[in-house]
Amino acid sequence: MAITVLRLGHRPARDKRISTHVGLVARAFGADNLFYSGLKDSSLEDSIHGVARQWGGSFGVAHVRDWRALIRDWKGKSVHLTMYGMPLQKRMGQIRKVSDLLIVVGGEKVPPDVYRMADWNVSITSQPHSEVAGLAVFLHEYFQGRELEKKYMGARKRVIPQARGKRLV
Amino acid sequence: MAITVLRLGHRPARDKRISTHVGLVARAFGADNLFYSGLKDSSLEDSIHGVARQWGGSFGVAHVRDWRALIRDWKGKSVHLTMYGMPLQKRMGQIRKVSDLLIVVGGEKVPPDVYRMADWNVSITSQPHSEVAGLAVFLHEYFQGRELEKKYMGARKRVIPQARGKRLV
Repeated sequence: MAITVLRLGHRPARDKRISTHVGLVARAFGADNLFYSGLKDSSLEDSIHGVARQWGGSFGVAHVRDWRALIRDWKGKSVHLTMYGMPLQKRMGQIRKVSDLLIVVGGEKVPPDVYRMADWNVSITSQPHSEVAGLAVFLHEYFQGRELEKKYMGARKRVIPQARGKRLV
Repeated sequence: MAITVLRLGHRPARDKRISTHVGLVARAFGADNLFYSGLKDSSLEDSIHGVARQWGGSFGVAHVRDWRALIRDWKGKSVHLTMYGMPLQKRMGQIRKVSDLLIVVGGEKVPPDVYRMADWNVSITSQPHSEVAGLAVFLHEYFQGRELEKKYMGARKRVIPQARGKRLV
């Protein structure tokens, strides 16, 4: 049982920060792995690996050349997050039953065959906003808030929550 | 009763897309206004105004020169989203009682006095991830999911949710 995120169409020059946020959100909200298509970007991988090394847990990042094969041969089910899809709240009951879920997150231009290949197309609001936000709210609903209290094994850094200021151990 | 988001320290060259995502998430998850500090950026304002014009509802965007005065003189209460704060799930009960909430969202470097000035410092997980994701999950919890079904007055574009493909009217 694992949750994998596939980020489509990464362009290193334009998308570095957004794709980094997608990766960090995947990790912080309970996913296990990030694949990304588009151009391979070692600095993207390094940023996410760096956070995972410092903050613990195991989180994998890998570039994927043939994302269509990844979706097609996926052993579990896949859900594509898109503002054009069916509302999250109407599909989550079914989706939660799946083990080995692949969550597909588009970028600026999503190839039209993704809509056919995914088992579900799901929207987080039907308004334009952000793939980072869509992924976070999707995972938050998937885990029903339990991800907010997740503990990370082998962390070198950990926050002690404070009403004021910062405390890091 | 209004929800306003303050995005701190916008740098047009580096933060355009992240700040745009913050603004679109604020709108799509039920906030009413965005203020931003840092450098004034007409193209940021235009992007968000453009979406609001096409997709309906009323959403305001304005640059603020003195963000400290904005927080200090705020008539309601303010909450600063930070990975160092107290867990969202322990503070939301109190926060939901407030009318006129100001949600302060940092950028790369947050001035330390924000932690003192805000009424609450709240974390959405204690892990590093994304201000875009933090804002989305905060608003999603604040509105308890009702924002997912929000209708927008005067929309020129509207999505008809589909299991496959796109439909826009």
